[in-house]
Amino acid sequence: MTQHEATGSVLDDVINAIAAPDPALRVEAQRLFDGKTKPRGSLGRVETLVADLAAIRGTVALGTLRAGIVIAAADHGVAAEGVSAYPQEVTEQMVANIATGGAAISVLARETGARLVLVDAGTKAEHVHAGALDVRVGQGTANFAAAPAMTRTQAVTLMERGAGLAAELAGDGVNLLALGEMGIANTTAASALCAALLPADPGLVCGHGTGIDAETRLHKVHVVGRALERAHPDPDDPIGTLAELGGFEIAFLAGVTLGAAAARVPVLLDGFITGAAALAAARTQPRVTGSLIASHRSREPGHRLVLDDLGLSPLVDLDLRLGEGSGAALCLPLVALALALYADMATFDAAGVTDAGA
Amino acid sequence: MTQHEATGSVLDDVINAIAAPDPALRVEAQRLFDGKTKPRGSLGRVETLVADLAAIRGTVALGTLRAGIVIAAADHGVAAEGVSAYPQEVTEQMVANIATGGAAISVLARETGARLVLVDAGTKAEHVHAGALDVRVGQGTANFAAAPAMTRTQAVTLMERGAGLAAELAGDGVNLLALGEMGIANTTAASALCAALLPADPGLVCGHGTGIDAETRLHKVHVVGRALERAHPDPDDPIGTLAELGGFEIAFLAGVTLGAAAARVPVLLDGFITGAAALAAARTQPRVTGSLIASHRSREPGHRLVLDDLGLSPLVDLDLRLGEGSGAALCLPLVALALALYADMATFDAAGVTDAGA
Repeated sequence: MTQHEATGSVLDDVINAIAAPDPALRVEAQRLFDGKTKPRGSLGRVETLVADLAAIRGTVALGTLRAGIVIAAADHGVAAEGVSAYPQEVTEQMVANIATGGAAISVLARETGARLVLVDAGTKAEHVHAGALDVRVGQGTANFAAAPAMTRTQAVTLMERGAGLAAELAGDGVNLLALGEMGIANTTAASALCAALLPADPGLVCGHGTGIDAETRLHKVHVVGRALERAHPDPDDPIGTLAELGGFEIAFLAGVTLGAAAARVPVLLDGFITGAAALAAARTQPRVTGSLIASHRSREPGHRLVLDDLGLSPLVDLDLRLGEGSGAALCLPLVALALALYADMATFDAAGVTDAGA
Repeated sequence: MTQHEATGSVLDDVINAIAAPDPALRVEAQRLFDGKTKPRGSLGRVETLVADLAAIRGTVALGTLRAGIVIAAADHGVAAEGVSAYPQEVTEQMVANIATGGAAISVLARETGARLVLVDAGTKAEHVHAGALDVRVGQGTANFAAAPAMTRTQAVTLMERGAGLAAELAGDGVNLLALGEMGIANTTAASALCAALLPADPGLVCGHGTGIDAETRLHKVHVVGRALERAHPDPDDPIGTLAELGGFEIAFLAGVTLGAAAARVPVLLDGFITGAAALAAARTQPRVTGSLIASHRSREPGHRLVLDDLGLSPLVDLDLRLGEGSGAALCLPLVALALALYADMATFDAAGVTDAGA
């Protein structure tokens, strides 16, 4: 670990490098789209999406989609509280399933032609899977109901490694980064983190995760409440709050979000966990929200609160609650088609179509 | 024209051949999806979409998507009332633009690999464009504010030709048919038809179409009201109502809908115009609704009423109002990805992932 990693000054540089989207490019992209053979604005959200991409990326020459998907996996000490429907070993099993092509996100990455980067941000697996990038600073967080999930140094290190990966992918030409995650009990970590950062009552944030029953959900609310009492999180210290209540994959993805925004690469969020990571990132640098695109609205109640806080309106609402980046990946073709329409539709002039200016 | 075409008995055969979707296949497809490595139901609407496709198509072996897009174009006498922001010649111009690859639907068909069939169902063009299938029974409808839009025989003939095209595409292996349309003033025809068939007040049905102002919209409401007073449509005679108030492309697409349903090919609707065509089809055969999938919810107020009447919940809501089948085409990748997930995800058994049954 370098001195920078320990002190977080690398992270500070990333945070300070983040610019707000350029409103003039949003207007210019819209003007270009207005010249295409359709009534102005008639492609609705497709047009505003393209304008947003131009503003974020700092250019109206958007080309075709070159999407990356970063899936960060980790284990959570809070799983010991019995807050998930699945045993903890499923994290490791699903990492292998993602790596070998059988998971939902594997299928979606293949079909959409996206570059899938699987990251072990801190699973309990004895060995990091050969198909995953090793950025571990530990093997599973501590149970945050009883103790801080991780140290501040671990959180900063993971955020810096995430930002570094985003910069690397941007350097490789990736022009949109979709986020995903895998980690048994990570909706509990996301719930605790969001309850602290929004702030909001645990009962309004906690949902049924991968499919727990009503009784287990009430227990989850109680566990999050205990954690908040223990940690007394300071919402003005987002990194400290992340260390207290977050997860390794959430810290890493918060770093990916910051790094992507600093490189002017749009970040396509998935569901509640990636939303919690983005919220943590936004609390360190509010300008990051301008680089975020919400793919879907998940069934988790906390996700709605996060989207509202970040001012994001999701592209679709498909009642998803899988995670893995699946909702983000399902939206990749919509982004690709939006770019194709923007680039390839004929103009009124070229097609000889009367422009009523409507 | 054969005797069958004149009497409509061919159409009766199509209507009688339509079966309701098979609920047992919906259950069986869901059971197969439940064996895949994800919490049960966690892919939400993606899973119910696949189950619906199985029930409609009558098989759980769904394979990959082979989509067809039928775009029917026609002109409308009611355009003379000044109800559109665009002059009538734009219909012909846009047919050429679609055929030569510059329209939104051209780009979307190309990018999604869908088979695009452009049909001239009755434009005013002197010659049918070489890139369009000629099924014309006339060149533009009469102004239905003053006289029936078309004869009943014309309506039946177009419906039969539409059903015939659907049967032909099904025979070629197309396993999903997306509908689209082009026709200046056709939201006025769709508004009149829906006001009659739902029934509903013209003021609740009429919207801003391609972009008319508030004053022109009020005029449109008035024109539709005059047409209803003139025609005294009988909602129990959907074909007669279609002839009085519809459009050539709407009649043709109603026939495509019936023909696709008879061939157990799911019909992916676009916006308000294709919804009006499906509503007319559903009034001739209520079982057809089981074969319909709503792609998006458009900005036209009448579209919401039609979707509610047909009991359809759209896949996306992107604030579109372009038509051409663009909303349906934007959803084709979602259907393709749903089928890929269903086919290609690993099972819990194969992947060695613990199935908690959640």
